[in-house]
Amino acid sequence: MAKYAAGLDYGTNSVRCVIANVSNGREVGHSVWNYRHGRSGVILTKDPNLARQHPGDYVKGTEAAIKAALASAKRTVRTFKAGDLIGIGVDTTGSTPMPVDCRGQPLAFTRDFARAPDAMAWLWKDHTSVSEAEEITSLAARVRPHYLAQCGGTYSSEWFFSKILHCLRTSPKVFESAYTWVELADWIPAMLTGTEAPDRLTAGICAAGHKGMYSQDWGGYPDERFLAKLDPRLAEMRRRLPKRLRSINTAAGGLSEHWAKKTGLYAGIPVAVGALDAHLGGVGAGIGPGTLVKIIGTSTCDMMVVPIKRELANIPGLCGIVPESILPGHFGLEAGQSAVGDIFNWFVDYIRPQGRQAEAHKELTKQAARLRPGESGLLALDWNNGNRTVLADQRLTGLLVGQTLYTTPAEIYRALIEATAFGALKIISRFEQYGVRVRRIVNCGGVADKNPMLMQIYADVTGREMMVSRSNQTCALGAAIAGAVVAGKQAGGFNSFRAAQKAMTGTKRKVYRPQNAAKEVYKELYEIYAQLHDAFGTVQWKGGLHKVMKQLIDIRVRARQRLGA
Amino acid sequence: MAKYAAGLDYGTNSVRCVIANVSNGREVGHSVWNYRHGRSGVILTKDPNLARQHPGDYVKGTEAAIKAALASAKRTVRTFKAGDLIGIGVDTTGSTPMPVDCRGQPLAFTRDFARAPDAMAWLWKDHTSVSEAEEITSLAARVRPHYLAQCGGTYSSEWFFSKILHCLRTSPKVFESAYTWVELADWIPAMLTGTEAPDRLTAGICAAGHKGMYSQDWGGYPDERFLAKLDPRLAEMRRRLPKRLRSINTAAGGLSEHWAKKTGLYAGIPVAVGALDAHLGGVGAGIGPGTLVKIIGTSTCDMMVVPIKRELANIPGLCGIVPESILPGHFGLEAGQSAVGDIFNWFVDYIRPQGRQAEAHKELTKQAARLRPGESGLLALDWNNGNRTVLADQRLTGLLVGQTLYTTPAEIYRALIEATAFGALKIISRFEQYGVRVRRIVNCGGVADKNPMLMQIYADVTGREMMVSRSNQTCALGAAIAGAVVAGKQAGGFNSFRAAQKAMTGTKRKVYRPQNAAKEVYKELYEIYAQLHDAFGTVQWKGGLHKVMKQLIDIRVRARQRLGA
Repeated sequence: MAKYAAGLDYGTNSVRCVIANVSNGREVGHSVWNYRHGRSGVILTKDPNLARQHPGDYVKGTEAAIKAALASAKRTVRTFKAGDLIGIGVDTTGSTPMPVDCRGQPLAFTRDFARAPDAMAWLWKDHTSVSEAEEITSLAARVRPHYLAQCGGTYSSEWFFSKILHCLRTSPKVFESAYTWVELADWIPAMLTGTEAPDRLTAGICAAGHKGMYSQDWGGYPDERFLAKLDPRLAEMRRRLPKRLRSINTAAGGLSEHWAKKTGLYAGIPVAVGALDAHLGGVGAGIGPGTLVKIIGTSTCDMMVVPIKRELANIPGLCGIVPESILPGHFGLEAGQSAVGDIFNWFVDYIRPQGRQAEAHKELTKQAARLRPGESGLLALDWNNGNRTVLADQRLTGLLVGQTLYTTPAEIYRALIEATAFGALKIISRFEQYGVRVRRIVNCGGVADKNPMLMQIYADVTGREMMVSRSNQTCALGAAIAGAVVAGKQAGGFNSFRAAQKAMTGTKRKVYRPQNAAKEVYKELYEIYAQLHDAFGTVQWKGGLHKVMKQLIDIRVRARQRLGA
Repeated sequence: MAKYAAGLDYGTNSVRCVIANVSNGREVGHSVWNYRHGRSGVILTKDPNLARQHPGDYVKGTEAAIKAALASAKRTVRTFKAGDLIGIGVDTTGSTPMPVDCRGQPLAFTRDFARAPDAMAWLWKDHTSVSEAEEITSLAARVRPHYLAQCGGTYSSEWFFSKILHCLRTSPKVFESAYTWVELADWIPAMLTGTEAPDRLTAGICAAGHKGMYSQDWGGYPDERFLAKLDPRLAEMRRRLPKRLRSINTAAGGLSEHWAKKTGLYAGIPVAVGALDAHLGGVGAGIGPGTLVKIIGTSTCDMMVVPIKRELANIPGLCGIVPESILPGHFGLEAGQSAVGDIFNWFVDYIRPQGRQAEAHKELTKQAARLRPGESGLLALDWNNGNRTVLADQRLTGLLVGQTLYTTPAEIYRALIEATAFGALKIISRFEQYGVRVRRIVNCGGVADKNPMLMQIYADVTGREMMVSRSNQTCALGAAIAGAVVAGKQAGGFNSFRAAQKAMTGTKRKVYRPQNAAKEVYKELYEIYAQLHDAFGTVQWKGGLHKVMKQLIDIRVRARQRLGA
């Protein structure tokens, strides 16, 4: 009798549920439930930096998504029964922290704060906490540099403590009313297993490690003295943060009677500790030592794992090196490009708006595919949204060079794609430079899936084969794999991620292989890219151009201030 | 009784005639005659570099334009009579050389060559002679560097000897059948005065000096030994080139009976020696010592004059320093930007095509005008078509830096305008660095006339007042001024250009004055522009980025060759 595991994937606009056959990874059930609050699930205000989610959507969405996925599985496999489902895994966006009361219930569920955005979940892309992030970064740089080393050298405004500190400063009533704050990735499994009460909750090591400066090396979260320098109340709050943190091979608990009744699933089936979406995406794409998983969407997340028993250098420029954040027993290494699909979308939406976005991409891709490498004479830097890896510098901007009076949009579009490929190669080189060999690359995410030209350019630029994940729901599939692992072999699941991934993940038949002629040209172009990269991005470069982009930003900021005045 | 002078202006697509009152410059008569041959007057073939004109258009166009202008003058001034017209001046595009027979008649008028593009006029923008230009440049650099010093360091494919040498090599039958070659600027006055026969023809010093390496310092055109190294037949042809070269204060002759009959004008009225359009445009805009005249169109021509009696340094990077090429008794100094309007047109036509060009420019200008200096965070180099002054390097290309995910077309459009303003400031600085003070700037040409935002940006960037020429036909007006001078004071004209310009030229009431706040911001931006200018444009820069644009061009050329193969 076939066994199944469910993966719940909480995204920016919706929650989806996948039900996968644990023997072969086949996704027999699938559903998407769009959040109801705000604009496509995101609460917006006049402040363009603000982005929140209403936790009511999580509750309703979970029930609806599970039920719909079960129904879908029944349509696919006539003999499918709820009893065949042996485990559940969860991934969410992050850092998406939420203030909760002493029972672990979201403040937004209380009457006092029913409509207060600050009492809702602070969505990953909320950027209200820029100045707090700078404050934390500069304090840590002075007194706790090792905190920053783990998270790429800069503490982001998107992350846990920046957001909580901002709330403390600007919404003291919310802050005072909250007992503690919980990452969404931790709250969902707690909700499903009835362990929301802070003393009962098991949190994941993934979000805490990558976004919360958590490490067993220094006894967990940042120490109280450090937090007290930011604000004594933050130090006090630390005592109420989750104490039990685990990797995804641990169950947060068994499905509660309440949720069993709601969904038709069996009570007691194990729910894995939650993790960030990209990291479980890595799992679903078959990550393991030597395999680079690239999730290519609006930005990229580039992940590798290295067995913890191996000596690992501190690789500068990565976004995070966190033990067990992706796979148990391994360091999770996270790198990324700040914008990839977003750059192409910018070009289509802002510079050349004609008709619908999807059509425009299609047409430009068709024209760009006719061009040979180097034919346009163009070269771009992929920094329109800053550079995450390897420069870790948000204050870098885009650059395009080589345009003539005959340069076409398709040529620019292709140059932008090539720029992201050069950026990808920079990341690969950085891994290898520090002894982490990249033997295999698996791509996933919408862009990888839909654009063969882009994949071919990536192969030609990097000189490596590009594989594409078989599943196009790798995050949800990764969550289901975690569900199959916490279920254990006895229940029909697995005792290790290695075994589970071997059975449940795979790549598509089409492999993009580097072509020699193109490779040669791109080798030359990459040298120029690397030269511009260093000239505009590093202090070491002798020409002093590294100040240019920042000076332009400073001038821009001053111009806008004058405008506001 | 009012006296009048006529200016004939032979452009790329049409010939126009202006009849101006010599006492105040008022343009009482005006006409345009569009050339009939080819595409808008330009003969094109499969070779995208080829651009020719049929001399038949010059003959027909001259008659039609004069007649129509006379009719127009009669409509404007009821008492106007042909007898009130005291002189004629001529300006044309150039270098536009034409092969002629021993009577000075265009080869294209003979039956053998009636349809041969090589026997027609080789229009200024014909680029078939690139390799010959390189050959001439490299030979001169070795053995006659002073030839190059006069014309900005590089002999262009657009110029006289490049074209003749190319004809010799690729169309020997045309070359052998030609007695000699004549610049269009010289042929028109010869035609009007019946002095086409090479031994009777008086040529202008302007085209010969700027485009033909002609100088009295070395005995006229390049010496025979030099030309013989290119080809002995070219050295032989030199003996049949015009021997009498004069400035525009000399009459080429009196209007012939033949042309008097054709047009209704009086035979014998003096026709001035011809000159290049931009140079007579300078005259029509009121050029004199201390005044910079900028003709801003698809590209710019920036002109100044310095009294010959003054010591003048050899200013590097100028396109030409030629005695009497603009005004008698003065050095003519010519600088320029390879593309200005062309860059804006590229952006509108190629990158953001929506609706008609003029409308798109209007809309983008409207949006760009709402932006404050520095607000976009963008900076561009104005090199999409290379850099004429001060780098004299056609193999430079465009650059844009500072783009984010929210950069708009209007921001880019404004950055491109600002880039051309920075380029303009580079030219002003170069003049002043070498002791030629710029005390007054008069702008003319379509772009100056139609875009107040651009003029204001130029004022803010340069920190100087921008004036706009009163006439928007400064070339034709300059030609009419030459006509009034060769007529002389006794006939009701003038004895000097100074007196003629004082009476006949002027600027519009609106003067664009630099605004302090904008000036400050642009000062900062210009420093960054200058840094990028030097980094990408000069060998001296320590970072070694000056190779980037050329490497990209080399890669492009190779990619296209492979494509062709």
